[in-house]
Amino acid sequence: MHPTGNEASDPHICSIIALLHGPDRPGLVARVSNWIFEHGGNILHADQHRDSEENVFFQRVEWTHNEDNAGVRRLADAFAQMAQAELGMRVRIGFSDERARLGVLVSKIPHCLHDLIYRWKVGELKGDLACVVSNHQDLEPLVEATGLPFHHVPVMRETRAAGEAAQLEILKGYGVDLVVLARYMQVLSAGFLARVNVPVINIHHGFLPSFPGGRPYHQAHAHGVKIIGATAHYATAELDQGPIIAQDVTRISHRHTVADLIRKGRHLEQLVFAEAIQAHLEHRVLVYGRKTVVFE
Amino acid sequence: MHPTGNEASDPHICSIIALLHGPDRPGLVARVSNWIFEHGGNILHADQHRDSEENVFFQRVEWTHNEDNAGVRRLADAFAQMAQAELGMRVRIGFSDERARLGVLVSKIPHCLHDLIYRWKVGELKGDLACVVSNHQDLEPLVEATGLPFHHVPVMRETRAAGEAAQLEILKGYGVDLVVLARYMQVLSAGFLARVNVPVINIHHGFLPSFPGGRPYHQAHAHGVKIIGATAHYATAELDQGPIIAQDVTRISHRHTVADLIRKGRHLEQLVFAEAIQAHLEHRVLVYGRKTVVFE
Amino acid sequence: MHPTGNEASDPHICSIIALLHGPDRPGLVARVSNWIFEHGGNILHADQHRDSEENVFFQRVEWTHNEDNAGVRRLADAFAQMAQAELGMRVRIGFSDERARLGVLVSKIPHCLHDLIYRWKVGELKGDLACVVSNHQDLEPLVEATGLPFHHVPVMRETRAAGEAAQLEILKGYGVDLVVLARYMQVLSAGFLARVNVPVINIHHGFLPSFPGGRPYHQAHAHGVKIIGATAHYATAELDQGPIIAQDVTRISHRHTVADLIRKGRHLEQLVFAEAIQAHLEHRVLVYGRKTVVFE
Amino acid sequence: MHPTGNEASDPHICSIIALLHGPDRPGLVARVSNWIFEHGGNILHADQHRDSEENVFFQRVEWTHNEDNAGVRRLADAFAQMAQAELGMRVRIGFSDERARLGVLVSKIPHCLHDLIYRWKVGELKGDLACVVSNHQDLEPLVEATGLPFHHVPVMRETRAAGEAAQLEILKGYGVDLVVLARYMQVLSAGFLARVNVPVINIHHGFLPSFPGGRPYHQAHAHGVKIIGATAHYATAELDQGPIIAQDVTRISHRHTVADLIRKGRHLEQLVFAEAIQAHLEHRVLVYGRKTVVFE
Repeated sequence: MHPTGNEASDPHICSIIALLHGPDRPGLVARVSNWIFEHGGNILHADQHRDSEENVFFQRVEWTHNEDNAGVRRLADAFAQMAQAELGMRVRIGFSDERARLGVLVSKIPHCLHDLIYRWKVGELKGDLACVVSNHQDLEPLVEATGLPFHHVPVMRETRAAGEAAQLEILKGYGVDLVVLARYMQVLSAGFLARVNVPVINIHHGFLPSFPGGRPYHQAHAHGVKIIGATAHYATAELDQGPIIAQDVTRISHRHTVADLIRKGRHLEQLVFAEAIQAHLEHRVLVYGRKTVVFE
Repeated sequence: MHPTGNEASDPHICSIIALLHGPDRPGLVARVSNWIFEHGGNILHADQHRDSEENVFFQRVEWTHNEDNAGVRRLADAFAQMAQAELGMRVRIGFSDERARLGVLVSKIPHCLHDLIYRWKVGELKGDLACVVSNHQDLEPLVEATGLPFHHVPVMRETRAAGEAAQLEILKGYGVDLVVLARYMQVLSAGFLARVNVPVINIHHGFLPSFPGGRPYHQAHAHGVKIIGATAHYATAELDQGPIIAQDVTRISHRHTVADLIRKGRHLEQLVFAEAIQAHLEHRVLVYGRKTVVFE
Repeated sequence: MHPTGNEASDPHICSIIALLHGPDRPGLVARVSNWIFEHGGNILHADQHRDSEENVFFQRVEWTHNEDNAGVRRLADAFAQMAQAELGMRVRIGFSDERARLGVLVSKIPHCLHDLIYRWKVGELKGDLACVVSNHQDLEPLVEATGLPFHHVPVMRETRAAGEAAQLEILKGYGVDLVVLARYMQVLSAGFLARVNVPVINIHHGFLPSFPGGRPYHQAHAHGVKIIGATAHYATAELDQGPIIAQDVTRISHRHTVADLIRKGRHLEQLVFAEAIQAHLEHRVLVYGRKTVVFE
Repeated sequence: MHPTGNEASDPHICSIIALLHGPDRPGLVARVSNWIFEHGGNILHADQHRDSEENVFFQRVEWTHNEDNAGVRRLADAFAQMAQAELGMRVRIGFSDERARLGVLVSKIPHCLHDLIYRWKVGELKGDLACVVSNHQDLEPLVEATGLPFHHVPVMRETRAAGEAAQLEILKGYGVDLVVLARYMQVLSAGFLARVNVPVINIHHGFLPSFPGGRPYHQAHAHGVKIIGATAHYATAELDQGPIIAQDVTRISHRHTVADLIRKGRHLEQLVFAEAIQAHLEHRVLVYGRKTVVFE
């Protein structure tokens, strides 16, 4: 559901995408659009949101300039400076001609990784897989068949510090811009999350905040719920408590065993995981507090 | 979604509906259907379920006899005795010509009550509203306009015992077979639930087990979930922990305020509440442990 | 799901809502927001869409001025003139302190009318019901119980011209701004639609373009579809072909009879009808060609 | 959502699955279950449906005998004879230890084939892929990487007869029990469908009966619908008119381009295609007239 602005633009012209948020006040929309117009830019898409309780303003704006790459970068810098200094906004800038590099952490369960690889191969993903790191060797053949590098880093509870250090070195070696946990079954430490220094997206196979932690399908089955779900969120130091990016659900009945839930959940997890990653890569997600704004 | 058997039957012939459950063993389906056939009955609909982990067998079977009312009751008794004594099943029997009487508990919020009255008036409900009891007077005009009796029983925390006694006397005076909590904002005591001696169905405006207790839409908003839900369940002494009968959900985004969630939730609550009550009235719900089997 | 801008605004200050569309060109967003800012306005919400195939630009923008009512009207006029003359846009203007008046056409089936009255009474509807006109007398008691005026205008095939003339006179007498067809079972002539001179919203009990015309649930049942739907659209001279505003669906199975579909469909129809009317009343719907843009 | 009976059964014991349908009359359920019980069988799962308008009875019953393979086959034959001769039913028999062989027809678009291969590899499919036949060579590498045989049979309009003859020879050479069209973009002739002599399941990327034939996403986009869908059905000589097995939908808005619909539709098509194939392989689908009964 990416913004139509992408469609409208000449694919050879690089557009700037800015994500802004900060204290609301009159004239913000006008100031932003006016700045762009005065600098010769053409707005492809702009969307705003106000959180009236918190008095926070959010905006995603995408525009082009008839400039070469260097000119576009200079203008983006100037814009960011204006938005920070003059409007008091926090700013994140993306460029349509940049593709993020993804590092994948995975354990033994292949379906989320498999779906991600497929979407990447068919050109659906607005980024590139750079490497796969796993605490098991099971998925090595699957990964190597695709030509992606596979790294095996065993992580036990007692060796987590060393394991995480090795993982970080690998991920940094590939220069990843985003880490995605494609059913990675270990808890990442707060230290890892601090040092990795890029966003981390996790897929949880439960409808959070119901059923956090281990074996959510078993929990759901024991609880007798009539609908199950999956949740993609940014990983934080609190397990399964990070800001939710995407969720989806499916209906079940008393006839479904835990094995049925696991099978039905696979598809949900793939869908929700891909949706969250894509929204992030398209610079459509803004985090504030424990929540997200996901522009359409 | 009531069983097609109902359709097939002559509406003037009373059918028997039996709900059975007990330890699974070979031959149960054959024994039940054979008993009915040997006694001249005609099975309109039969559905089974096995919980293979717990080794429990569940069945809903509906059939007719070419007998008058008294004959049908005698045969139903004989069947129940056979199923208990010979098959070790727990049995509940219903008759298609009996309409349950519902007592409604409500506070100030009208939409679930309003929807229930409407469904009753258009003939959609397989039972009859008998009375409305409220701890507030706000809904008295709405109720009286429909011709239903309205009883105002104030219940404060310190007067709950007296209030519940008054509620029980009223409900028993109407001979209700089912109590439904149409957004009743007080917690019923374990004593009330024991003494009322009929099932109690509650509608909770959250997707249980997420957001039990008060102000679930506020909780959902604060949590930043992307989907909200409503849950109908049998009330038990543990608040919002009873066996779930029906759930439904709807998608929200960062744009929705708490007021929006409340407004969107109204429709969900009506739908889920009506679905659960209808399933109960059609003898399609079997409770076991903390879960339900809901036959279709 | 109305724009949060409404929330943010002081309810005592009247906001202007403008719906624009016309040929796309650079600088439109900047020009609009700049005009508002230069005239002392404060943008509460702005949303755009580009149809890149047709090169059409669409915008919904809502803003306030610190002016009295007369001042606000003058500024809105000035804005509209600028947008037409300078930007080549078609413009529609609404004011947050104006409530549209709705005329309802209905036949015998009450559920859509009933739901609409309820939403109006609880303050959910951003407009007011003005009158109900029916070609049957069945719903007169329901309508009169609410205090709304009810007009019976019999319409047969051979008397349609006279009937429509009478309907038009009544609707114009109430000064309605919108006509809604709450399961009105007659086809309105092209002449009626031309002369009524306000938008007409119809609810069709089928998932258009599947199953237009009569008895769509019977058609769906005969066709063996696994999902049924309802569609709200602007009425045009071509039956059930007007621009779609809202649709929703529900899952069915072979177990559902036509009667089940009709019962399940009721809720769908209410939901979709209300959603479309609300979107229209909040000035969120733009029609172009046979399609709509529905801003969120 | 396969029947729990499968779970209950010892995987090493072969169960019999019978699908029956024919004119309804009293005692059918009893006669079937009684026959099984008298022959020492144990019913794992039984489900019935009555079409009361057509007076047709449908049943799916699954049971075991403590017999070796030859004994089980003899008993299944005896059952089928009884059901035909005595009950006037049409009977189809399956065995839990038999895996159907699937032949896949595909053109250039890989996602449905890819998903099917994945489900097969992870053991989710209750059957085995036997071969892939395509009228293009694009997917040869994908197929060969999995070890499946790939056959290229060019089919032009003027060479369709020869092409279909070649396809039939290949499919018969592999002894396939089911042909699935994983986005096969040619129309199969009535002659092909008659001679292939096994069921053929097609995935159509539209919500039938809306948008049959070519380019359904383009049709949906032009029509301005708010929800799109996919439909899996048995192929018949009438294009896209065969009995529907499964459908699913997803919500779209004016923001989605045709390219977005195609992308969103991929996931829908995979899900619906797999669901229909699985239902067929589990002997849960009965066709009658233009409709299906899909047991759960």
